[in-house]
Amino acid sequence: MTTSSLWLRFQKYFLRYEELGFCVDISRMNFPDAFFSGMQHKADNAFAAMRELEAGAIANPDEKRMVGHYWLRNAKLAPNEELRREIEKTNQRIKQFAADVHTGKIAPEQGAKFEHILLIGIGGSALGPQFVADALGSERDAMDIYFLDNTDPDGFDRVFRKIDNQLQQTLVIVTSKSGGTKETRNGMLETEAQFNQCGLPFNKHAVAVTGVGSDLDRHAEKNGWVARFPMWDWVGGRTSVMSAVGLMPMALQGLKIDNFLRGAAVMDERTRVADISQNAAMLLALMWYYAGEGRGQKDMVVLPYKDRLLLFSRYLQQLVMESLGKEKDLDGNVVHQGIAVYGNKGSTDQHAYVQQLRDGVLNFRESITVSMPDVDAFNVGALIALYERAVGFYGSLVNINAYHQPGVEAGKKAATKLLQLQTKVRTQLASEPKTAEAIARAVDADAEDVFHVLQHLASNDAQIVAQPAEDPGADKFSIRN
Amino acid sequence: MTTSSLWLRFQKYFLRYEELGFCVDISRMNFPDAFFSGMQHKADNAFAAMRELEAGAIANPDEKRMVGHYWLRNAKLAPNEELRREIEKTNQRIKQFAADVHTGKIAPEQGAKFEHILLIGIGGSALGPQFVADALGSERDAMDIYFLDNTDPDGFDRVFRKIDNQLQQTLVIVTSKSGGTKETRNGMLETEAQFNQCGLPFNKHAVAVTGVGSDLDRHAEKNGWVARFPMWDWVGGRTSVMSAVGLMPMALQGLKIDNFLRGAAVMDERTRVADISQNAAMLLALMWYYAGEGRGQKDMVVLPYKDRLLLFSRYLQQLVMESLGKEKDLDGNVVHQGIAVYGNKGSTDQHAYVQQLRDGVLNFRESITVSMPDVDAFNVGALIALYERAVGFYGSLVNINAYHQPGVEAGKKAATKLLQLQTKVRTQLASEPKTAEAIARAVDADAEDVFHVLQHLASNDAQIVAQPAEDPGADKFSIRN
Repeated sequence: MTTSSLWLRFQKYFLRYEELGFCVDISRMNFPDAFFSGMQHKADNAFAAMRELEAGAIANPDEKRMVGHYWLRNAKLAPNEELRREIEKTNQRIKQFAADVHTGKIAPEQGAKFEHILLIGIGGSALGPQFVADALGSERDAMDIYFLDNTDPDGFDRVFRKIDNQLQQTLVIVTSKSGGTKETRNGMLETEAQFNQCGLPFNKHAVAVTGVGSDLDRHAEKNGWVARFPMWDWVGGRTSVMSAVGLMPMALQGLKIDNFLRGAAVMDERTRVADISQNAAMLLALMWYYAGEGRGQKDMVVLPYKDRLLLFSRYLQQLVMESLGKEKDLDGNVVHQGIAVYGNKGSTDQHAYVQQLRDGVLNFRESITVSMPDVDAFNVGALIALYERAVGFYGSLVNINAYHQPGVEAGKKAATKLLQLQTKVRTQLASEPKTAEAIARAVDADAEDVFHVLQHLASNDAQIVAQPAEDPGADKFSIRN
Repeated sequence: MTTSSLWLRFQKYFLRYEELGFCVDISRMNFPDAFFSGMQHKADNAFAAMRELEAGAIANPDEKRMVGHYWLRNAKLAPNEELRREIEKTNQRIKQFAADVHTGKIAPEQGAKFEHILLIGIGGSALGPQFVADALGSERDAMDIYFLDNTDPDGFDRVFRKIDNQLQQTLVIVTSKSGGTKETRNGMLETEAQFNQCGLPFNKHAVAVTGVGSDLDRHAEKNGWVARFPMWDWVGGRTSVMSAVGLMPMALQGLKIDNFLRGAAVMDERTRVADISQNAAMLLALMWYYAGEGRGQKDMVVLPYKDRLLLFSRYLQQLVMESLGKEKDLDGNVVHQGIAVYGNKGSTDQHAYVQQLRDGVLNFRESITVSMPDVDAFNVGALIALYERAVGFYGSLVNINAYHQPGVEAGKKAATKLLQLQTKVRTQLASEPKTAEAIARAVDADAEDVFHVLQHLASNDAQIVAQPAEDPGADKFSIRN
């Protein structure tokens, strides 16, 4: 393409939301002019599916749930009065709670104010709050925030060492939609132990964000925690940043949650328009479709040029991959859909992996440029809304359920099974050394699984001893008396 | 495959370096038994190429350079006495310098000790130090460390706000191999301005790590900086963490650089053995080859299960993608090689994108498990050495130069050209508004480039005004008098 035809193409395919200052430039995606008309039918279906979703349809059929994250920033859209009130009431409670913490009306028993937040959560319960805290935080925040977002004991200790002498001024938010996530429960128990060790009453420092009636919710109620805020089954973890999951820590940090919600609501409005050429979210979805031929054949590389957007690529990785990485389509056909997403930050990445993007294997897409006028609460809200809707549209274009996560659920079940095996294996250990195979026979389990469990136990429990041999099959394991 | 045959396969393909406690399990890669014998010839060539490289051959033919990062941890291997002495002397100077800073022998003019490090660098000059600082750092470190690793003014300000009141106790390390990297120079100038503003003499706080005789080196000499440490042209940025680039900040932080180097040296020794089945680095390279059919057809997803290894995936992304992402092979054929790498950290990722890995698009590899006994200086050194050599071997397997980065150089040139265009465009601005096309004609440049430059200027310079129109081609730009 000649330079001047590129300039013409740019003018044709540069979409600008004037009043928002948001721009999306798709002119460097080399789709043919007929592409949009060829996709019109699929796009119309996606617009229709989104309208139904927003109106309260069971848009997540596998889990028989509504999908309501768009209502969170515009409660008037909620399909009934009860939900509308619930959203409004919760947002009101969040603001009041944060205000009370800031003024010291809600304060630690030992006096002084809460100054620090420790958020315990994983996946959808951590990535959104982390992204927003990093994108919008500053030295002037009302409170600072720490995260336990994994299940690594050494990682826990690192965080505790950072806040140990401030534990008395620390408010802990435990976030788990199901209320039963193992990693989050580990983090909570370790934190509670840490408070006990310092002679502080954990329950007077703890807030739960969880489904009403979940294990965590009942635990918090029974133990007299400071507060409980609801997660709803119609909000997925990866789109929960505008529910209490994200708003609660934001409000405590002193960030402008109303602006954040308004930015999202305005972007929702602009991307609700059923006109491809004026709909930035549909343009993104169509470009992803074009680049990967609707089968995710290209990786999506995200290069944000502002330091504050460093975690956006990680946030997007979850949003896109968890939503779109699916085995079956809505008709039950095996399709193995998805789009791989990676990236860190602009200039830094240019000095790292852009070598490969320029010269190397051709497994990523041509470029789209998204620009926004500022990294503030309003615009970050708008950015999130743009990509949430693009992902939803893309799910419709390729006919999958973008709102469940059977693979994560299966992974949780596998982890539970392994923990059960670990308990069984431990009871088989004696002072006399045994091989993995012998123990596997005794507990009727797979020898390799048992070997890994034994290795893990030997690395983490001083009582358990491994005697390596030439070959792992001959390794022996015992327990000290 | 049945469970018991998996257990047999595990025993066959589980490699353990007993004295190191390092294990590599490739049994879940479903290569056929004949794979290794089929690859024997290519592997032998790779072993031979690596022997020549380590002996001082011009292993980077495009840049006509030796490739000597293996000598950094075992100076006796250096191909001549002069290099050997240079390496040993530099390591000695680094340790002495750090000791002098810790005791206060080298101290700020205004009294007290240096307590903080600010490292300015990008790409290879930042990722290694960042990874190591995060993996090995603790609250007990001798000094803490901050980074300017991008060129975002707001990002600079965020770091300055964190260390502003400690600037007097801050030692600045400016790291650039070429000594002319634009982002690093920006960071240096901004930092110098910050020191001036606080009435502190920047030169008495600044250390250079750069090629001898580079612009930065001469600048540092002329201005009487505290110290200068060399980078050598036979060490690439992405493998420079065991040169002054990585060792200098590590030593200041109080980390054990001798252990770090020894871990790498021991791993080098084990992976120098020309026996596929006993060589962990060759096993990794062969598995990458197997998974992507020697053409990078699968992505490499890295899930480290320790919080301390969070940045390892980013480090590896640079090491692998910059080394292997190449347009041409060593014979000049266009091959577009490379392997895409991404990942964050274990459990967290299971709750994010593992949904796609389990169910979605089949564009990543089967699994390899690498385990190490601890995350300490010795083992992190060993881990880096393992992957450095695996990348080198893979480069040989696919017949590319793994040691240059023409795409990065081309990117730097393009950036320079755009900066020149920016200067020209600015001179064309007048109080009377003009379109991008009009200015482009005047400076004989591409209209789209000029449009982007104008947008950039209008966003960052209060004097320059953009008047958006219906269409970007009709936007007008002017400068205030």
